[in-house]
Amino acid sequence: MTETKGHVLSSLAARVGGRVSGDPTVVIHSLATLQTAGSGQLSFFANSRYLAQLKSSRAEAVLVNEAHLADVPGHAIVVADPYLAFARLSALFDWREPVVPGIAAGATVAPTAQIDPSARVEAGAVIGEDVRIGAQVCIGANVVVGARCEIGEGCRLEANVTLYPDVTLGKRVLVHSGAVLGADGFGFAHDGGSGEWVKICQLGGVVIEDDVEIGAGTTVDRGALEPTRIERGVKLDNQIQVAHNVRIGAHSAIAGCTAIAGSTKIGRHCTIAGMSGITGHLEIADGTHITAMSLVSRSISRPGAYSSGTGLEPHQQWKRNVVRFRQLDELARRVRKLEQTLEHISTEGQDDDGC
Amino acid sequence: MTETKGHVLSSLAARVGGRVSGDPTVVIHSLATLQTAGSGQLSFFANSRYLAQLKSSRAEAVLVNEAHLADVPGHAIVVADPYLAFARLSALFDWREPVVPGIAAGATVAPTAQIDPSARVEAGAVIGEDVRIGAQVCIGANVVVGARCEIGEGCRLEANVTLYPDVTLGKRVLVHSGAVLGADGFGFAHDGGSGEWVKICQLGGVVIEDDVEIGAGTTVDRGALEPTRIERGVKLDNQIQVAHNVRIGAHSAIAGCTAIAGSTKIGRHCTIAGMSGITGHLEIADGTHITAMSLVSRSISRPGAYSSGTGLEPHQQWKRNVVRFRQLDELARRVRKLEQTLEHISTEGQDDDGC
Amino acid sequence: MTETKGHVLSSLAARVGGRVSGDPTVVIHSLATLQTAGSGQLSFFANSRYLAQLKSSRAEAVLVNEAHLADVPGHAIVVADPYLAFARLSALFDWREPVVPGIAAGATVAPTAQIDPSARVEAGAVIGEDVRIGAQVCIGANVVVGARCEIGEGCRLEANVTLYPDVTLGKRVLVHSGAVLGADGFGFAHDGGSGEWVKICQLGGVVIEDDVEIGAGTTVDRGALEPTRIERGVKLDNQIQVAHNVRIGAHSAIAGCTAIAGSTKIGRHCTIAGMSGITGHLEIADGTHITAMSLVSRSISRPGAYSSGTGLEPHQQWKRNVVRFRQLDELARRVRKLEQTLEHISTEGQDDDGC
Repeated sequence: MTETKGHVLSSLAARVGGRVSGDPTVVIHSLATLQTAGSGQLSFFANSRYLAQLKSSRAEAVLVNEAHLADVPGHAIVVADPYLAFARLSALFDWREPVVPGIAAGATVAPTAQIDPSARVEAGAVIGEDVRIGAQVCIGANVVVGARCEIGEGCRLEANVTLYPDVTLGKRVLVHSGAVLGADGFGFAHDGGSGEWVKICQLGGVVIEDDVEIGAGTTVDRGALEPTRIERGVKLDNQIQVAHNVRIGAHSAIAGCTAIAGSTKIGRHCTIAGMSGITGHLEIADGTHITAMSLVSRSISRPGAYSSGTGLEPHQQWKRNVVRFRQLDELARRVRKLEQTLEHISTEGQDDDGC
Repeated sequence: MTETKGHVLSSLAARVGGRVSGDPTVVIHSLATLQTAGSGQLSFFANSRYLAQLKSSRAEAVLVNEAHLADVPGHAIVVADPYLAFARLSALFDWREPVVPGIAAGATVAPTAQIDPSARVEAGAVIGEDVRIGAQVCIGANVVVGARCEIGEGCRLEANVTLYPDVTLGKRVLVHSGAVLGADGFGFAHDGGSGEWVKICQLGGVVIEDDVEIGAGTTVDRGALEPTRIERGVKLDNQIQVAHNVRIGAHSAIAGCTAIAGSTKIGRHCTIAGMSGITGHLEIADGTHITAMSLVSRSISRPGAYSSGTGLEPHQQWKRNVVRFRQLDELARRVRKLEQTLEHISTEGQDDDGC
Repeated sequence: MTETKGHVLSSLAARVGGRVSGDPTVVIHSLATLQTAGSGQLSFFANSRYLAQLKSSRAEAVLVNEAHLADVPGHAIVVADPYLAFARLSALFDWREPVVPGIAAGATVAPTAQIDPSARVEAGAVIGEDVRIGAQVCIGANVVVGARCEIGEGCRLEANVTLYPDVTLGKRVLVHSGAVLGADGFGFAHDGGSGEWVKICQLGGVVIEDDVEIGAGTTVDRGALEPTRIERGVKLDNQIQVAHNVRIGAHSAIAGCTAIAGSTKIGRHCTIAGMSGITGHLEIADGTHITAMSLVSRSISRPGAYSSGTGLEPHQQWKRNVVRFRQLDELARRVRKLEQTLEHISTEGQDDDGC
């Protein structure tokens, strides 16, 4: 890992509005878990499951809430939300170096591209015509930026990212390696005569708003006529597929390998767990939560948690249950018939009561 | 977006065998939806759900069928299939520029590669030994083409595509960024003694026939001994996995994130919705349709629509149902037993009738 | 395909500890299936389903076990495990060329990187500061290797692979195109006040042990604080997602498009079929087998085969069953009630017996 210059505990506390308990002058060089942290390391306590680890931790200091301060063996920063404070402080210890302005030898920049002098373009990157790149942007090695893209201040495109023409990124967007923004949406008209598919050229671009993060290998297709849009603060994990004309509302977070089909609108502040599939032309309400590997095939108008699928079971047992699932409608009819028969018997019995 | 020179309405109508209603000399500069289209823009009407939008559209002209011509406020092109006509015309407005022949500075081309003088190789592309590249081909920035690949006339490889050695593309194949064609199939023999996996080198290549489109991040593995093959006119969306020895029949269309395991043969004119999984060594009949997120684990001999999975429901309700699914075989046995008991009671009752 | 110089049958037999039946001096130039093999080609027989193909094969020679030697029309190598022997011999016929040492023109290597003189770096590759690359390593075209990565002897990174900083590969690791190792894990703290996600910088790296293979487009995220780790001999197919802090035990094999969420520990010698999803913070026992497209949402302590999902069925039938699944808990309650009613009737009947 990279070496970081240290930070005194009091300055870390000040950054997160916390209070130091213990020696405010101790120096923190790196972050670690409660179990592994030692001298010069800061950890955090955010889950009562790990109380034993807190009590025996050798961390130089721990981020902790007031209630558990007494359990900290060493120094501490007391905050209301230790996990959130840990997140904020983590940026100080990141492996990413500050942006070194300049265009590396071995990069290819079109003559009409406008690149802010404070931006960095690494070796092997290829920047197209009429591209605009803002201040403090870092374009990684072998990245390709298509014509007319606009990349806002503080964006970072990691190595081997691809932007097709007409992709706009807001400020501080982080795009991970292998991500592809702006490829053609999957649009074809079927020619009933020949049985062939006729391509519908995809003329919209992609708009990514401020503070979005896009994971490795994630694909966001360009819109058919208007841009596909990802609103500010959205976090997309790896290998997500976002089809054309989709809109993802602000501050929604989507875990890896989820796919969202064309023209669907996801609300704001949604969370979608990994490997879920969302079919096309749906509307998902703000504040909806989808559990892992669910299929969403209808719009959701009421926020809440939703799921589909079945649970894991031993394979032999599962095989028997799967057979029964295929007969489930029939089984339900048989139960209904049993109920009717029993109803009849019981009614007959009541008639008999009169005897 | 790019500016396009306009097309007069009559020339657009002629291209799709349509008839102009209104002024044939109006000039169309771009395409748009019924809702957003304005002056100089062409739209289409193909779904009666949008009739209100058609009636209030401010589009310069609309592609429409005879039945709805009267509902068009402005000019129109009357065709039998407006959506298909729209697809055909969309190519005139594409953002892709005509191919500018030549090999960009910063591309690396092996001395034995044969590149047609009308082809384009962008900066950062690396072309291997004995590669053959046909007329009007466009090789995007940072694309890698392995040794002995053959790329037919009019193909387009978008930025950051990877072709391993021994991949053959027919004519007019479009491969999107991040796609990988020809990586090793997943083949290993298990060494029972050591518990280790021994690699089976994958010696087949990949053959992609004419007019195929391959989405961003899609992977098509090379065959073990003979090539993996994708027949003409097939359309593959993003992040699809095609394993070794698979064959996909002509004009089938497969949506994003679907995976097809080794040696499976998909028929012609199939449609497979997104995130479906198809296990290995199957045969899927021509004209089969698979709905989203289905698991296909047996061959399909009769065309038709097939599905698996369960529907979405509120998480708490789903949790109860999932528990019941694990007991489904037992439940079915209990229903059978109830039926037998009732049968017995009812038979006893009939015996009693004789009293 | 590449031409290979031939190998006499006796030398092939010696490599796999087999016995030649027939002429030990015949020369084998390539490998093929029983059906397609001809003169100069070696095939194998490992599945009794293909007995008819064995008997009619025109292969120059076949790898076969003792029991089926009499069924081989031509020459043979007799071994205990023909499939395993075939795997071992396949390496002799691979399309990969021996590594040609040197750094290609058009590669970019940081001055502090240490590259073994027997290693190869292809055109367009970008090697970061303080990287160490071992003997006989091959770095493909347009690969990016981040700062401080260590790449052990005999590794091969195919074209367009991305390694973030702080990724360590053992010996003989094969990484396929489009794979991304070391991207940020998906870690954010939720700021309840603003509703925004605050990034937790991901400070751990990735450790890949010896003899691992990583498929095309697969992503392995860096750990939050300590490295994500893949133990020796693991085989990962294409488009797999391995989240931060995951550990995959030695010699496990995972098929395409499977996703493993954060902090889960997979045991050794597991097999996980394609498109499975494994949620976070689980422990999966050594020797566990998961069938295709299963959701694993609890830890597994007993080895065995596990499954989830439902089987494929015609779409109309499936729609009815899916409705019933939503009512499954209610159905089970109705069956319980029927049982109680019948119990009651039958008990009444017994009371009546006394009459």
